[in-house]
Amino acid sequence: MSKELRTVSGMRPTGPLHLGHYFGVLKNWVELQHTEEAYFFVADWHALTSDYADPSKVRVNIHEMVKDWVGAGLDPEKCVIFRQSEVKEHAELSLLLSMITPVSWLERNPTYKEQQQQISNKDLGNAGFLCYPVLMAADILMYRPHGVPVGEDQLPHMELTREIARRFNYLYGGELLPEPKAMLTPAAKCPGLDGRKMSKSYNNGIFLSDNMADIQEKVRGMFTDQARLRKSDPGNPDVCNLFPYHVLLSSPEEQAEIRKGCTGATLGCVDCKKIFLKNLETFLMPLQERRSVLDANPARVDEILAHGNDRARAFASQTMALVREKMGL
Amino acid sequence: MSKELRTVSGMRPTGPLHLGHYFGVLKNWVELQHTEEAYFFVADWHALTSDYADPSKVRVNIHEMVKDWVGAGLDPEKCVIFRQSEVKEHAELSLLLSMITPVSWLERNPTYKEQQQQISNKDLGNAGFLCYPVLMAADILMYRPHGVPVGEDQLPHMELTREIARRFNYLYGGELLPEPKAMLTPAAKCPGLDGRKMSKSYNNGIFLSDNMADIQEKVRGMFTDQARLRKSDPGNPDVCNLFPYHVLLSSPEEQAEIRKGCTGATLGCVDCKKIFLKNLETFLMPLQERRSVLDANPARVDEILAHGNDRARAFASQTMALVREKMGL
Repeated sequence: MSKELRTVSGMRPTGPLHLGHYFGVLKNWVELQHTEEAYFFVADWHALTSDYADPSKVRVNIHEMVKDWVGAGLDPEKCVIFRQSEVKEHAELSLLLSMITPVSWLERNPTYKEQQQQISNKDLGNAGFLCYPVLMAADILMYRPHGVPVGEDQLPHMELTREIARRFNYLYGGELLPEPKAMLTPAAKCPGLDGRKMSKSYNNGIFLSDNMADIQEKVRGMFTDQARLRKSDPGNPDVCNLFPYHVLLSSPEEQAEIRKGCTGATLGCVDCKKIFLKNLETFLMPLQERRSVLDANPARVDEILAHGNDRARAFASQTMALVREKMGL
Repeated sequence: MSKELRTVSGMRPTGPLHLGHYFGVLKNWVELQHTEEAYFFVADWHALTSDYADPSKVRVNIHEMVKDWVGAGLDPEKCVIFRQSEVKEHAELSLLLSMITPVSWLERNPTYKEQQQQISNKDLGNAGFLCYPVLMAADILMYRPHGVPVGEDQLPHMELTREIARRFNYLYGGELLPEPKAMLTPAAKCPGLDGRKMSKSYNNGIFLSDNMADIQEKVRGMFTDQARLRKSDPGNPDVCNLFPYHVLLSSPEEQAEIRKGCTGATLGCVDCKKIFLKNLETFLMPLQERRSVLDANPARVDEILAHGNDRARAFASQTMALVREKMGL
């Protein structure tokens, strides 16, 4: 790879990916692989920070996620797809960075207390959960990227990563670990079927691997403009739960027509959903075709990861040699 | 190695070793290497938990410490001498164990707050310092030892290590990580030259690598029974700062004679020190001879470590394969 800029990003293998993941993250990754030297990793150690007590699904999820990634358009020859836990250097760098990270920085991490309060069915008082922003900093700084694609909710972690990099450079001299920029991904509006955030735990998602029959079933029950009871009532796309999908999947011309038909009470929700289903199918077909190649040949997923693990390890071991040198080890 | 029992222990490379280290730890290690499959490691990552801000001496100290170990009688063919930071599996296991270790267990570690209060010239608010008992648990549990030789001050860490092992086995089933016993080393009384604890930071130690001229100088200024001003005063070996060294280094017959001569005011402190110096020289000579072989051939230290690192890694990678399997990775 001779691309000038380098980036890195990861995702926890917590289950099948849905449209929210695609439009919020993957679409951006697929673009980045063409313009940057990109490292994308399955954050299986991060999955353990909260799922340590029952990690039985992690292994399956890893494979399924890589299939979703490749389906979405990540090309293992254009970017590095790897598994965090197979590049031990991440654990080493995390340990070393923990030496220079004040506990107080971790305790004041806004998502720390928040998640501890919100997630009541898991015990998040473990050290791994407190320290996971250090692991995240290691995941990022390992590849010395100019920037990292993140959503707004990740900004506190990015700031902490930058602080850790700054402290490392201050203590050991030089600029070995550049402070990476947060490359804010514009939040794509992609609500769940019921209008809440699309999330596996709400069971309100359309998954990239769903078959069309299931999707039809899901879309049939999907909320639209809840004040519109009959086709003859004029609807309002701006409060409709379906219309954001048209914004993502339908052409500007179609969107204009739909808006007109909805507000003019000439296009009913059932027909509007049919347009959506057609466009969704057109969108999903190539993704699912790429995915089915891997479904038919699961060993290929292992190959992709093995190839990516080697490439990531090659880069990571260079960084670690420099880090150890700096730290006098 | 076909010895039935396995043990592991480590030492932070903070400077040259003195007689206190020898009689408190090394003597015991040298015996253990004959009876157990023993892993002894240079805890260089642990040195960073407190010395992260100025790790410049760590690298030199590692070499010096291995020389002291081999001088003291550790035989790289009879035991495994390795460097912690060269066996990345320790970082991986530490990370995984941090997932199941409650922060509260670390905060109530008695040495944690104590050291934070006592050591005022270093900032110990770093995450690495809070979490170092987890790293220590990983160092130990990696080798699934039946027991670990420790001093009394290490008992709280041993208890935490046992608790972490218990929790791991409880969460993931089976008995992969047996709870290691603390094998309490009887504390050898070996005060510093000034009567305080022998410690590098008090500058009151006799180092294993000191030459006899320096030692003579040090012993000349050594406290004895401070109430005994003249040879003609009867002395009291039980309050004398020198007599404990006779207990360690002189024969029982000599000890009896010295006690008689001191209490009977026939043996003066100067002569008593001469006996000590003679016996110390006899004791140190073979240690320093073994050490000088390495001084003359520093590359041999690297060889010893490389050999030990490989053997430790071979064992550690087996443990990690089993740990990952248990944790579903």
